[in-house]
Amino acid sequence: MRTRVLLFAAFALAACQKAETPEQATMRMAAEGDSAKTIISAMAVRYASFINANQADSQAAMFMDGGMMMPPNSQAVTGRDSIRAHLTREPMPPSSHLTLMTVEVAANGPIAVERGTYNFTMPANAQAHTPAVSANGKYLQHWHKMNGNWQIAAQIWSDDVPAMPMPPAPRR
Amino acid sequence: MRTRVLLFAAFALAACQKAETPEQATMRMAAEGDSAKTIISAMAVRYASFINANQADSQAAMFMDGGMMMPPNSQAVTGRDSIRAHLTREPMPPSSHLTLMTVEVAANGPIAVERGTYNFTMPANAQAHTPAVSANGKYLQHWHKMNGNWQIAAQIWSDDVPAMPMPPAPRR
Repeated sequence: MRTRVLLFAAFALAACQKAETPEQATMRMAAEGDSAKTIISAMAVRYASFINANQADSQAAMFMDGGMMMPPNSQAVTGRDSIRAHLTREPMPPSSHLTLMTVEVAANGPIAVERGTYNFTMPANAQAHTPAVSANGKYLQHWHKMNGNWQIAAQIWSDDVPAMPMPPAPRR
Repeated sequence: MRTRVLLFAAFALAACQKAETPEQATMRMAAEGDSAKTIISAMAVRYASFINANQADSQAAMFMDGGMMMPPNSQAVTGRDSIRAHLTREPMPPSSHLTLMTVEVAANGPIAVERGTYNFTMPANAQAHTPAVSANGKYLQHWHKMNGNWQIAAQIWSDDVPAMPMPPAPRR
């Protein structure tokens, strides 16, 4: 009898990797998505505050070592160092402001996909002959959890409306 | 003694969800990413062939029920029906051609994130006064496996270079 119980225990252990039913997996992932959303939406707010303060170091540090920034109308930028250099080269214009809003997070273990929207505003600049801008857009971010910390693996976004035509260059 | 063995069996079963070490999880996910890449890269090629043939039905069917298409300079389009309508409204221009190339797939169970690049070509059109176009870009696709089939949960892309300025409207 004892052997039979031990055999059962061994069999149960061998089979237990398959213990989760598809329904259980769906419920577990929904809970993981909810808890990842709480963390990641707060990180998105922090990320936006780094952008608005032109803190390229802090912004780049939120990416994975080989993370990718995929800006519209520009080639992808790979790796923290290149991202930091890119952000330093193209700082936010004075008085412009970005707001990020996480809409949905899907997660399974250390992989998460965040979908969100953004609003970018910039006041008119008489000297540069540029009009005021208020642009809405959407983004997708692939996150990866490393040693308990979520990091950005890939980031891509685009405006909801065509970019406004640039005004003619000022006469000299 | 028998009770102790049974208690051990019950404890082992309760603990076995944690049986995978972080190293094992990393290896399992690498294998899952590889196998998902084989399937998803073939699906990306099929998706491109549907685009090039303006088969909006087949293209929309590759999305999840509530899947999202997030085109640049346009609001996000949600759900198969809306995606089909959007694709029908904005077909590929005659003789234009899109090529999709999957670069990397990260997967964990039913969640996958595909990163890829594309090339879009369009011959010059003397009648419409439009020049030839060859645009490279990058994309991110969030896939979800439902009943054994990968479906697109969200899709977003952008060109690598600024869009060429539109030529002046033809004189009438």
